Amino acid sequence: MSMNSPALRSFLDVPPDADFPIQNLPYGVFSPRAGEPARVGVAIGDHVLDLSVLEAAGLLVCPGREAPAVFAQPALNVFMAAGPAAWRAVRARLIELLSADTPTLRDDAALRSRALVPRAQVQMHLPCVIGDYTDFYAGIHHAMNVGRIFRGPDAALMPNYRWIPIGYHGRSSSIVVSGTEVRRPCGQYKLPDEPAPRFGATRELDIELELGVLVGVGNTLGEPIAVERAAEHIFGLVLLNDWSARDIQQWEYQPLGPFLGKNFATTISPWVVTLDALEPFRCSLPTQEPPPLEYLKGPGLCGYDIALEVELTPAGDKPGAVIARTSARELYWSLAQLVAHHTVNGCNLRPGDLLGTGTISGAAPGSYGSLLELAQRGKTPVALPDGSQRTFLRDGDVVTLRGWSQGADYRVSFGECRGRVLPARGGS
Amino acid sequence: MSMNSPALRSFLDVPPDADFPIQNLPYGVFSPRAGEPARVGVAIGDHVLDLSVLEAAGLLVCPGREAPAVFAQPALNVFMAAGPAAWRAVRARLIELLSADTPTLRDDAALRSRALVPRAQVQMHLPCVIGDYTDFYAGIHHAMNVGRIFRGPDAALMPNYRWIPIGYHGRSSSIVVSGTEVRRPCGQYKLPDEPAPRFGATRELDIELELGVLVGVGNTLGEPIAVERAAEHIFGLVLLNDWSARDIQQWEYQPLGPFLGKNFATTISPWVVTLDALEPFRCSLPTQEPPPLEYLKGPGLCGYDIALEVELTPAGDKPGAVIARTSARELYWSLAQLVAHHTVNGCNLRPGDLLGTGTISGAAPGSYGSLLELAQRGKTPVALPDGSQRTFLRDGDVVTLRGWSQGADYRVSFGECRGRVLPARGGS
Repeated sequence: MSMNSPALRSFLDVPPDADFPIQNLPYGVFSPRAGEPARVGVAIGDHVLDLSVLEAAGLLVCPGREAPAVFAQPALNVFMAAGPAAWRAVRARLIELLSADTPTLRDDAALRSRALVPRAQVQMHLPCVIGDYTDFYAGIHHAMNVGRIFRGPDAALMPNYRWIPIGYHGRSSSIVVSGTEVRRPCGQYKLPDEPAPRFGATRELDIELELGVLVGVGNTLGEPIAVERAAEHIFGLVLLNDWSARDIQQWEYQPLGPFLGKNFATTISPWVVTLDALEPFRCSLPTQEPPPLEYLKGPGLCGYDIALEVELTPAGDKPGAVIARTSARELYWSLAQLVAHHTVNGCNLRPGDLLGTGTISGAAPGSYGSLLELAQRGKTPVALPDGSQRTFLRDGDVVTLRGWSQGADYRVSFGECRGRVLPARGGS
Repeated sequence: MSMNSPALRSFLDVPPDADFPIQNLPYGVFSPRAGEPARVGVAIGDHVLDLSVLEAAGLLVCPGREAPAVFAQPALNVFMAAGPAAWRAVRARLIELLSADTPTLRDDAALRSRALVPRAQVQMHLPCVIGDYTDFYAGIHHAMNVGRIFRGPDAALMPNYRWIPIGYHGRSSSIVVSGTEVRRPCGQYKLPDEPAPRFGATRELDIELELGVLVGVGNTLGEPIAVERAAEHIFGLVLLNDWSARDIQQWEYQPLGPFLGKNFATTISPWVVTLDALEPFRCSLPTQEPPPLEYLKGPGLCGYDIALEVELTPAGDKPGAVIARTSARELYWSLAQLVAHHTVNGCNLRPGDLLGTGTISGAAPGSYGSLLELAQRGKTPVALPDGSQRTFLRDGDVVTLRGWSQGADYRVSFGECRGRVLPARGGS
């Protein structure tokens, strides 16, 4: 049976609409209870399977990495560096151990109680040590929308956009895991009718709905990764919220790009969905016209059919609303093209590096991945069920990103990427 | 006697024009011989003092970090995190141990032979693990020169330049130590008279003469560093060559800033000169007009009087020439302002983070820190003693940056930051 067969069943009861069926098995780093040592696990139904327990029991070995500490680690980096053959072998073994037909774990109550931790009680951490974080701009509708708002309709899309997977370097130190509160940043911004900039809390705090690509195997400095091999270097994907302060960003971004408007926080979801789990959801890319240069062309380039949504919930547990629905299909460039472009000059990627796709927006209103676009920088506020409106985020707002690929009677889900806005230091 | 007194003398013979007198004592990470385990040392005259030997002998303790492994480490990060009081205590102790009046090391031949390694035989490494690398743009003459070349005289300096210490995130993974060869990168560039971009080896490989600031103590995410405390977070400075491919950079940099035109390599010098050693060379800043916003104002903001030069030596040991001479005095923003600005939105710095100042150019031709400026993008080639000319770098060229502050009869020098250009993969 294929590792992605809808017919696969676990001895654990996982309903068809659950996030984490046996076909998914995303990797994460968790503490069984807050404060306990972190280790590697996979999500399965309402549980986390503790891979360090299986490793210690001799039931799980990462091929090529026989040292005992591949999973008894507070980060996935060692496993990420092991490469696609090892990832597939471990995935196959985990499917075997969790399947309804395998007695090893199913019938060993003592082992089960040590290895399966209720997901509700665990504390999730960042999945890996992220050396470098790069953010791309592969959502073409977003690029056009933002260009129109910031530079006007004539200069919306730069002449390089359809030639180059545009990207820039982001900040690693301020990447936080879902659930971490995000403080409204202060900074310089300039109002159009004032001669000098002001300093204060951002008035235009925004979100960006993205996917994050976590690099598995890296490359040596000076040695590019060819586009046809690039997917083998990708360990998996997470949801990513690239929090942005638009007023700070607009005043600072010329000529060297965004800086303080972005680097105060980036939130990622804790569960890394592997490309192996997403294999059945490959889809065709948008037409790339003009055709890209040779180093960006390859057989089998694909997109991924991942439904995405943004929910906004006001402070005080007032009812929230899904304010945007879109799909990863909207990305102009494939993930493999991002990797190939990033390394074509010899730049080296390392295991655990993070590549954001850039904000994913569709073509129609309601499918935009940022408030900047949804509310057209204030012109068309977003209405919430409690009667309030949003042009940008308010203090106390909770933003939740969700993503999933829908199979026959199961879904491969990313779970949630969530963050609540704290007031600026000294009040905002 | 002050720790910076010209009258300080070591029992080691150090001539007045040497790079590393007792007043300097820059920190670095080295292997006594290539391949041996790396550890922390300071440069003194023609030697490296192995701090791990002193630590093991009980002669050197880092206050607040009594664990034995502060200096028996392949990186300075633990020491960097110890903070300015610890740095000063260790510096005072090293001056004491190396001074002509202290018998401990001077008269112990066995200890001396273990602790003092001839500098000619050591292998230098990167001084620390660099989590994030930020590159600023604080050289105002460079910003004007490049703006004029890329955007014309009317848009040379952006309206934000005198308000914001402009910066952007660079790439950590491709930072290499002096002596590492740098491969000419390939990438996309677009010739002005052609409708589509080409792919190939860069035709415009350049250097950028910068200083690098290494962060000592970091800050918590969400908690800015006030400008008046910012200098206490700086461990020391290095020379930095921000290799740049101008054709790739120009085609890619709109709207999100430089990416592949920069991230193929950044070279830093191995010896970290502390702010304590540079204390006598503080100087006034250029007039900042308009006056900066409150969070960038502070008592005691200063520049540093550090002479800087760029030497270019063609392949085959042909005679080289110093092609640029300038000074760190030319920087518009102080190092403390860079730190305060970087963190004012709550962005967290970590021990070992690197902040480039941006290219340092003077106002006059011959004082420009890049070939782009020196040769005016090809209009005024630079002549070398072998009769050849340069508009940009050729394969085999060796670029050496040097920097020093001149005292009464000693100099506090950075040593050299060097790199040789390798041909592109497949020939260039």
